Amino acid sequence: MSTEAKTFTYIGTRPIRHDGADKVTGRANYGADINLPGMLHGAIVRSPHAHARIVSIDTAEAAKMEGVKAVITGDDLPETSAKLAMGEGALDLHDIGDNLIAHKKALYHGHAVAAVAATSLEIAREAAARVRVEYEVLPPVLTIDQAISPDATILHPEMVTRGRGVAPSGPTNVASRMELRRGEPDRGFAEADVVVEREFHTPMVHQGYIEPHACVARWGQDGRAVVWTTTQGPFVVRDGSAAILGIDAAMIKVIPTEIGGGFGGKITVYLEPLALVLSRKANRPVKMVMTRDEVFRATGPTSGTKVRVKIGAKSDGTLVAATASLWYEGGAYPGAPSGAGAMCCLACYRIPNFLIEANDVVVNKPKVAAYRAPGSPMAAFATESVIDEIARTLGMDPIELRLKNAVVEGDAAPYGPKYGPIGLQAVLEAARRHPHWQSPIASNRGRGFACGFWFNAGMNSSATVTLDSDGSAAVFTGNPDIGGTRAAQALMVAEELGVPVERVRPTVADTDAAGYTDVTGGSRVCYATGMAVIEAARDVREQLRARAAKIWNTDVSNVAWEAGRLVPLNGAGDKTPLTLVEVAAKASATGGPIVGRASLNVAAAGPAFSAHICDLEVDKETGRSTVVRYTAVQDVGRAVHPSFVEGQMQGGAAQGIGWALNEEYVFDAAGAMENAGFLDYRMPVASDLPMIDTVIVEVANPIHPYGVRGVGEVPIVPPLATVANAMRDATGVRFTELPLSPPRVLAGLMAAGD
Amino acid sequence: MSTEAKTFTYIGTRPIRHDGADKVTGRANYGADINLPGMLHGAIVRSPHAHARIVSIDTAEAAKMEGVKAVITGDDLPETSAKLAMGEGALDLHDIGDNLIAHKKALYHGHAVAAVAATSLEIAREAAARVRVEYEVLPPVLTIDQAISPDATILHPEMVTRGRGVAPSGPTNVASRMELRRGEPDRGFAEADVVVEREFHTPMVHQGYIEPHACVARWGQDGRAVVWTTTQGPFVVRDGSAAILGIDAAMIKVIPTEIGGGFGGKITVYLEPLALVLSRKANRPVKMVMTRDEVFRATGPTSGTKVRVKIGAKSDGTLVAATASLWYEGGAYPGAPSGAGAMCCLACYRIPNFLIEANDVVVNKPKVAAYRAPGSPMAAFATESVIDEIARTLGMDPIELRLKNAVVEGDAAPYGPKYGPIGLQAVLEAARRHPHWQSPIASNRGRGFACGFWFNAGMNSSATVTLDSDGSAAVFTGNPDIGGTRAAQALMVAEELGVPVERVRPTVADTDAAGYTDVTGGSRVCYATGMAVIEAARDVREQLRARAAKIWNTDVSNVAWEAGRLVPLNGAGDKTPLTLVEVAAKASATGGPIVGRASLNVAAAGPAFSAHICDLEVDKETGRSTVVRYTAVQDVGRAVHPSFVEGQMQGGAAQGIGWALNEEYVFDAAGAMENAGFLDYRMPVASDLPMIDTVIVEVANPIHPYGVRGVGEVPIVPPLATVANAMRDATGVRFTELPLSPPRVLAGLMAAGD
Repeated sequence: MSTEAKTFTYIGTRPIRHDGADKVTGRANYGADINLPGMLHGAIVRSPHAHARIVSIDTAEAAKMEGVKAVITGDDLPETSAKLAMGEGALDLHDIGDNLIAHKKALYHGHAVAAVAATSLEIAREAAARVRVEYEVLPPVLTIDQAISPDATILHPEMVTRGRGVAPSGPTNVASRMELRRGEPDRGFAEADVVVEREFHTPMVHQGYIEPHACVARWGQDGRAVVWTTTQGPFVVRDGSAAILGIDAAMIKVIPTEIGGGFGGKITVYLEPLALVLSRKANRPVKMVMTRDEVFRATGPTSGTKVRVKIGAKSDGTLVAATASLWYEGGAYPGAPSGAGAMCCLACYRIPNFLIEANDVVVNKPKVAAYRAPGSPMAAFATESVIDEIARTLGMDPIELRLKNAVVEGDAAPYGPKYGPIGLQAVLEAARRHPHWQSPIASNRGRGFACGFWFNAGMNSSATVTLDSDGSAAVFTGNPDIGGTRAAQALMVAEELGVPVERVRPTVADTDAAGYTDVTGGSRVCYATGMAVIEAARDVREQLRARAAKIWNTDVSNVAWEAGRLVPLNGAGDKTPLTLVEVAAKASATGGPIVGRASLNVAAAGPAFSAHICDLEVDKETGRSTVVRYTAVQDVGRAVHPSFVEGQMQGGAAQGIGWALNEEYVFDAAGAMENAGFLDYRMPVASDLPMIDTVIVEVANPIHPYGVRGVGEVPIVPPLATVANAMRDATGVRFTELPLSPPRVLAGLMAAGD
Repeated sequence: MSTEAKTFTYIGTRPIRHDGADKVTGRANYGADINLPGMLHGAIVRSPHAHARIVSIDTAEAAKMEGVKAVITGDDLPETSAKLAMGEGALDLHDIGDNLIAHKKALYHGHAVAAVAATSLEIAREAAARVRVEYEVLPPVLTIDQAISPDATILHPEMVTRGRGVAPSGPTNVASRMELRRGEPDRGFAEADVVVEREFHTPMVHQGYIEPHACVARWGQDGRAVVWTTTQGPFVVRDGSAAILGIDAAMIKVIPTEIGGGFGGKITVYLEPLALVLSRKANRPVKMVMTRDEVFRATGPTSGTKVRVKIGAKSDGTLVAATASLWYEGGAYPGAPSGAGAMCCLACYRIPNFLIEANDVVVNKPKVAAYRAPGSPMAAFATESVIDEIARTLGMDPIELRLKNAVVEGDAAPYGPKYGPIGLQAVLEAARRHPHWQSPIASNRGRGFACGFWFNAGMNSSATVTLDSDGSAAVFTGNPDIGGTRAAQALMVAEELGVPVERVRPTVADTDAAGYTDVTGGSRVCYATGMAVIEAARDVREQLRARAAKIWNTDVSNVAWEAGRLVPLNGAGDKTPLTLVEVAAKASATGGPIVGRASLNVAAAGPAFSAHICDLEVDKETGRSTVVRYTAVQDVGRAVHPSFVEGQMQGGAAQGIGWALNEEYVFDAAGAMENAGFLDYRMPVASDLPMIDTVIVEVANPIHPYGVRGVGEVPIVPPLATVANAMRDATGVRFTELPLSPPRVLAGLMAAGD
């Protein structure tokens, strides 16, 4: 299915991941596995109120407990106005700093207000319980509608609505607003033969990574600090912690541990600055590990949303107009991915007239963080449900309708630039051909279909490749390996140098060893950091050419690289070709060790499209539904390690199915989360799901030397709509609010008179 | 005193070392500080005989003890014929492998014959005691004279004497022989007005590093292994262990811990291959830490020697002829630094006629290892004692005599090549000018003077320098930091980039992160690895020029680097200069992160010369002597961090004084070492020594961009003779055997009728 004739030796193979044995045998060290001599344990005092002014904090009783070595409050981490550059944007460190320890107000149930370090976790927790905080409880704002009502309680009195072309106004709970438009929507709708408009709601949901946030910080008497932490962004932890604490980032070294999942939720800092300040105060290393309850209450889930979409089509299926109104909860601070949602919501289709507006709304819930294709799944839930309904209204095959309107190379994306070679058509065609789509549906089941879009990202990456005199190689980058990127990087080095992939040693480096590298996120590691790895390996190849030239006493222009060998050309034609191993063995004699390196800021990325098919069986007496068959089709550009690509596609689908069917933050009237644990927050487990079938489509991304696109995020975009469309097909009822949990489905069926 | 006008900003300053606080507060992790979950402890069974055939080993009783997880013997590490390239030479891994666990014969008291891993150190030791080894005891060879006698017991029946121009013959205990000659010694001596000939003896002595050998090895089920170890050569440990075990070095990662001294003794492997095999067998991590007794008995001290030197001079002091015959103990296997001794012994002087012969002799003592300027101190003891006697005979000032014959630029070294710019004359003149030399001597004291030579080494080094967007930098290399090289490397980066030295973060990398780098040894790290650091920093500078050119939209030829700033030239002359910090902040927007790297094989080095002055007070009733004043003068080329240069000069002098006055391996008749502990092996402690005065002479080494020479080794060369010459001055007795311990001095004085 590849559009490129290029052949590979290693790329596309499936070696056992280099870090695999350590992980399955328990040898790999995760955040909580770091232990240092004299280490203290930290515990956090958290607000029991969703919205409250902090009147006073009395730490005296806690501080005098035996074994307690430090107690801190917001006073120990003064508010900052610093910002941290990251990719194209910037992290507002004021909010991140206030989120990790409240200064004036507690803005959600679970908001940290103080922290303790003690010689044991038990003592630390007991001391935390003895910190007395006096609150002035304020009314909580718990929904978008509450937040934007004219008489809303305001979370941040100084907040004004910002956005391009938006006149700042406040006080308000709407942090920002953006609009995208093309053509004249009103005229477009006037030309439509069918118009469907619906409003959709999704709850706040959590990434649900297995490993909780955990770190150890050690502050030295010389002001130099080391932080071991489970993170997607060691440089964010370094620079963010330094800026929040007002110290020089050059004095902090961050050593990323193995990471047990992140999905965007482990990019920012929650514990590290607190652990650093506790360590500085106690003059001892401090470990902090969140409980699952804390992970749910006080880290970043993704936004609950309200999205209204209206789409008009001609009777032949041609889409002519659309409007979309997106309202995303940022949680306690601005930061909802509403802008990304706006950019994604119509990105699959050629629509000549549209108006999209997106709003970032603060509410008294945890500050949201990135979650896999942030903002796009909820937007796609709305758009793809409406498209499904248009297909039903027109009596068209849903794939046919999408193919008719699918964006192709040269079309402008709704957010501006023209698409290069993209794979939506190929993905839709592959889905249509798939046995799943071709198979009949049992009578008690429904079939849903939806597609999805994600930008993918490039950003800054550095890589170093060293070649040993025995012809083996090592590669290291600054990206923690979440989805198998070490194996992918080893494959790239193997491909470029002809070194067996088992003899390439991939490493995740710390912030003092790696060149600056942006986060493991944005589906960028295999893609952009991979580009740096390839370039670093090619740097090695160029050096090998020069070494061969030296051995042959000829000009480097007389040496060619051919499939792992140095081959003489022209004036050197009488020489015998040398293998990489032979030249590597002579490295010392020809100038010294061979080390390649590359650093890039990859500005662009190849967008990703995916399409999912879901067969759902619904028990109409209980409302319980079961996914009986599921297929994910995706354009990955080029699958470097197909098993891990398939794993990403399956993992994204599984998370999206959970979001669609069961997951939701449940809050009581006072704003306390009622289901902050895996027993009550219902994520899908292996027994809930069928084997998810995958189809890899490879439409080469021309920006990347192998054609790679990011793969990790887009698979979570279609499932919400795919499952909801299957539910519509199975039950005849159009559900517009997630999750499609048994009570909601049962209520929906009863309301429909079923 | 510099011969170069070059001015520096950071080089020559004395910042606090970056790793200092961690070391003085106990946070730094040394070899024994590594602990892993499920870790076992190893213990070694050692031969109680100096020379014995191993008849059988019964491990059954040990293996069945509760808590014992693995027992190994030489059968688990088959003999290898592999060799390991290192610098110009090669390590014979057969001998290293047989030395770390005996296969057929135990060749010294303490030779390992089996090893055990158990859940506690106590169990491991008890199990080791229960390994039953049947020996056929053989007569031990304990002195050079025994070894070379016609009816000597032969240690290695297959051994023949090797050497350039030597017809291999055997069986023998003389492993190799070399000769250096110039002119016609006989005719030279015939022209001499005075000829002095003496034979000198020095005992085996140990480096006495504070930290014993220690490592943890973890063998994974996937065949990938990690070794944490205190070593001067992480790549030697990796490649040597792999070759000895017959596995692929690409499967081993070596992480060097902090190192508590090495002095050459931590280059080879003793524990690591055993720990790897135990870990493989037990499927658990294994820690092995030597006791001090084991360090003395079973690691590598330096050779005991017998050196006969004859020098002839004209009455005006002109040296006209010399012969030197060097016999060095290699211990149980070949490897004595007799060749280096031969090359060094006359290297300070222009002598038109000489013949030097050097022999490497095996005896039933521990296999020797490198020790700070290996081979040179014992040779200098002989030569400089004879030179002192010639000066006395001629009534010449000893410095005057040396100045008259001192080698200068353009003179040929005894081992062949012509010297470039060297500092012996400048050193001698500085010593003559020094207040110590000018001061009168109290009547009960004597003053000695001697000088010394060391080659210094270059070899392979790699370095990476990363520049952060905040204008701070990091530098890493593969050399464990023994003498402050992290601080020196940070100074070099600071010098090249204008980044404050405190904002440069120096790191010691592991074997997967660092480009191949030869050992920390040969006085090469600050010199050769420093050259790689400087080149890597200049690589960063070139990238900064290119980034500035991009910002100014001009050609890079229009951008100059001037003292930390990017300055516009020619066509770009209208632009405002940018600081490094400004350009670094724009790295992401101008192409990505900035990482510089360099790898070099530095073939040559600038030789080092030093001269020491010692005032010794001798208690003629007890033979006890006290160093009351000591001055070390040395040409260091360029002192990067003068405090650490002075520290090296003082440390080398202190070790040499210990060697001269008290240190020696004492063996009983059966070949058992009788003083294998710091209570009985008498090393100097702080209270034994005066503050050692230092004079840094800087004759720039033209090979190095700053003029740096290696500094760490040559200061141990003069002390043996310096102290002995002081003893002669104080007592009138010429001692030719070390150490000058009270019993020997007393016996010498009594024999002289004093």
